[in-house]
Amino acid sequence: MARDFATVFARLAPHMAALDVFLREQVAAFEPEIRTMADYCIDTSGKRIRPALVFLSGWQADGAVLPDLVRVAAVVELVHLATLVHDDIMDEADLRRGRRTASREYGPEAAVLLGDALFSHALHLAAHFPTTAVCRAVADSTRKVCAGEIIQTLRRRTASVTRADYQRVIDLKTAELFRVSCALGSELARLPAGFVKGAASYGRHLGIAYQIYDDLADFFGHERKIGKTLGTDLVSGKLTLPLLTLLERLPETLGAQLLAEIKGEKSPQLPFWLKYMEELDVFGAVVAAIEAELKIGEDALRPWTDLAPTELLLQLGDVLRAQVEGLRRTNPVAG
Amino acid sequence: MARDFATVFARLAPHMAALDVFLREQVAAFEPEIRTMADYCIDTSGKRIRPALVFLSGWQADGAVLPDLVRVAAVVELVHLATLVHDDIMDEADLRRGRRTASREYGPEAAVLLGDALFSHALHLAAHFPTTAVCRAVADSTRKVCAGEIIQTLRRRTASVTRADYQRVIDLKTAELFRVSCALGSELARLPAGFVKGAASYGRHLGIAYQIYDDLADFFGHERKIGKTLGTDLVSGKLTLPLLTLLERLPETLGAQLLAEIKGEKSPQLPFWLKYMEELDVFGAVVAAIEAELKIGEDALRPWTDLAPTELLLQLGDVLRAQVEGLRRTNPVAG
Repeated sequence: MARDFATVFARLAPHMAALDVFLREQVAAFEPEIRTMADYCIDTSGKRIRPALVFLSGWQADGAVLPDLVRVAAVVELVHLATLVHDDIMDEADLRRGRRTASREYGPEAAVLLGDALFSHALHLAAHFPTTAVCRAVADSTRKVCAGEIIQTLRRRTASVTRADYQRVIDLKTAELFRVSCALGSELARLPAGFVKGAASYGRHLGIAYQIYDDLADFFGHERKIGKTLGTDLVSGKLTLPLLTLLERLPETLGAQLLAEIKGEKSPQLPFWLKYMEELDVFGAVVAAIEAELKIGEDALRPWTDLAPTELLLQLGDVLRAQVEGLRRTNPVAG
Repeated sequence: MARDFATVFARLAPHMAALDVFLREQVAAFEPEIRTMADYCIDTSGKRIRPALVFLSGWQADGAVLPDLVRVAAVVELVHLATLVHDDIMDEADLRRGRRTASREYGPEAAVLLGDALFSHALHLAAHFPTTAVCRAVADSTRKVCAGEIIQTLRRRTASVTRADYQRVIDLKTAELFRVSCALGSELARLPAGFVKGAASYGRHLGIAYQIYDDLADFFGHERKIGKTLGTDLVSGKLTLPLLTLLERLPETLGAQLLAEIKGEKSPQLPFWLKYMEELDVFGAVVAAIEAELKIGEDALRPWTDLAPTELLLQLGDVLRAQVEGLRRTNPVAG
C-alpha cells in the first residue's frame, strides 16, 4: 500500500471540503469588520493535520462525513490557527505558509484580538454539542497549549533547558491538540473506549514526533518549501532538540560559544553550526528521536488493527517519515 | 437606605471572600511557571463588579453563598482579567489599578499568552457545569467582547466614528459581560425567567453606563485615584463619547484641529481641550447619557421589585451615580 501524503489525503477530500464549507460559514458569523481578517487566517493552504486526525480517528467508510466530526475538526483547527496568530506576534515572524503573517498584515494589536476571537469562536462551537464533554476537552487542551507556549517563551535565551524541559513543552504546546483531535474524533464516532485511548496515545506521540520534525526543518528545511524563515529558533534563543543534541556533542568551548548565541550575547552563526551539525550527525540523532516517538504511538494502536481507522492513522506516521526523508534528500548537510 | 459602595459591598463580603479562595485555588492549578504571573493578575485590588453582578442577581439571603455562583463569578472575572491583560498590551499602558501592567511586568509576549491562559481557564471552569448552557453563554460573550475590542482597535485614529459606532463597540466590549453576569447569576439561582431577562437587560445598560463613565474618567478623573494614566484615549486616537460630544459642539476649525490630533497628524493638546470641554459642558452632556442608560436598565427591573436581588442590583446604579458625582466634585473643570 502506497503510504504517501496524496493517498491518505485523497480519501479525506470530501471531509476537507465539508470542513472548508463549515469554516467559511463560521467566518460569515463574525462581526463584519473582522470577517476579512478571519478569512485571511482560515486560508486553505494549511496542512490541516489536526482535522485529518479527527476524521481518520472516527473513520467510517469512504465518503461518509459525520457532521459532528466536521464541527470538532473546525474547533481544533480554529484553536490551532489562534495559537499560530499569537505565536507569530511573539516570534515577530514575517512569513507563514509562504505569505505575510496576520501580525505583519494587520499589526500586532489587531492580531492579539484576532487570535482571541478565533479562540472564543472555537469554544463557542465546542459548547454547542449536546454534552459538555467536547467543551471540557477543548478548554483543557487549549489551556495546556497556552501553558506550553508560555513556558517556552519564559525559557527563551536561557541556557539551562534540558531534554526533559523540551519534551514537556512540546507535549503541551503541540502533542496535546493532536491527542485531543484523535480522542474526540474516535469518541464522537462511538468507537470502543479502548480504541479511543489508543488513538489518543497515537495522536500524542505523532504530535511529539511532528514537533521534533518541525524543529528539525527549522535547520534543515528549504525556506521556500516550508514557507517560513529558517534558523528562527537559533535567532530567537530557543533550545530545540537539534540544538540540544548539538550542545551535547560539541567540545566544551564551542558549546559555550553556542550558548552565548542562545543567550543573545553574541550574534547567531547559523552556517557555522550547520557545519558542526553535519559533522556530529545531529540530523541522524534527531531522526532517531522522531522514530522512537512514532514507534510508541504505533504500539498503542497495535491491539486495534481490525478497526478501519487504525490503518489510516498509521499512514500519517508514514507521511511524516516521508517528510523527514524529504529533508534528508534536499539538504546536503543532513547527511 | 444608604446606597453607597460600602453598604452594598459589605453584604457581598462573604461572597467575595469565597471567590478569592476559589480564584487562588485556580492559580494553584496552573503550570508552576505561570502561577506567579496568574497570581499577579488575579490580585484583590480590582473592583470585581462583574462578580458582584453575579452574586447580586442570584441573591438569596445575607451570608448565603451558592457554590455555582462563586464558580460563574470566577469565570466572568477571569474573562475580564484576560481582556485587561490583552488591552494593556495594545494600549501600551504602564499602569493598571495603580501598579505595573502585566505587559510591562513580564513583557508583551508573555502577556499575550497569559491572557490566553486566563481565557482558556475561564472556559475550562465554564465547561465543568453539568449542562452546556454556561459554556455557551460564556463563549458567546467572550467572542463578542473580542469583536468589540477588535472593532475599536481598527477604528483608532479614524475620524469617521459616529455615536452609533461608539455605542455598538461598548455594547460588545463591556456591556456584554455585565449582561451575561446578571443572566447567569439569576439563572443559576433558579429565579423566574422573566426576572433573568430583566436582570440581563439591567446588566447590559449598567455596563454601557459604566463604560461611558470610564471614558469620562479618562478626561476628568484623578490619575492617582483611578490608578491609570489620564488622557490615553486622546493620545491613542480613540473617539469616545466625551470627544464625540466635544466635536459636535466645537466650531468647525477647532473640530478639524481635534480630528487632526485624533488621526495622529498633530500632537494631542489635552489641557487645551479640557478648557473647551468645560466651556461647552461636555461633562453635563455625558452624565446625561449615563443617566439615560441607567434609567433603561432600572425600567427593566421595575416589574420585579418584590424579589430580593432587585433592590441590591439597583444600588449598583446608585454606586455609579456616586462615582460620577465624585468626578464632578474633584475636578474643577467638570463644572
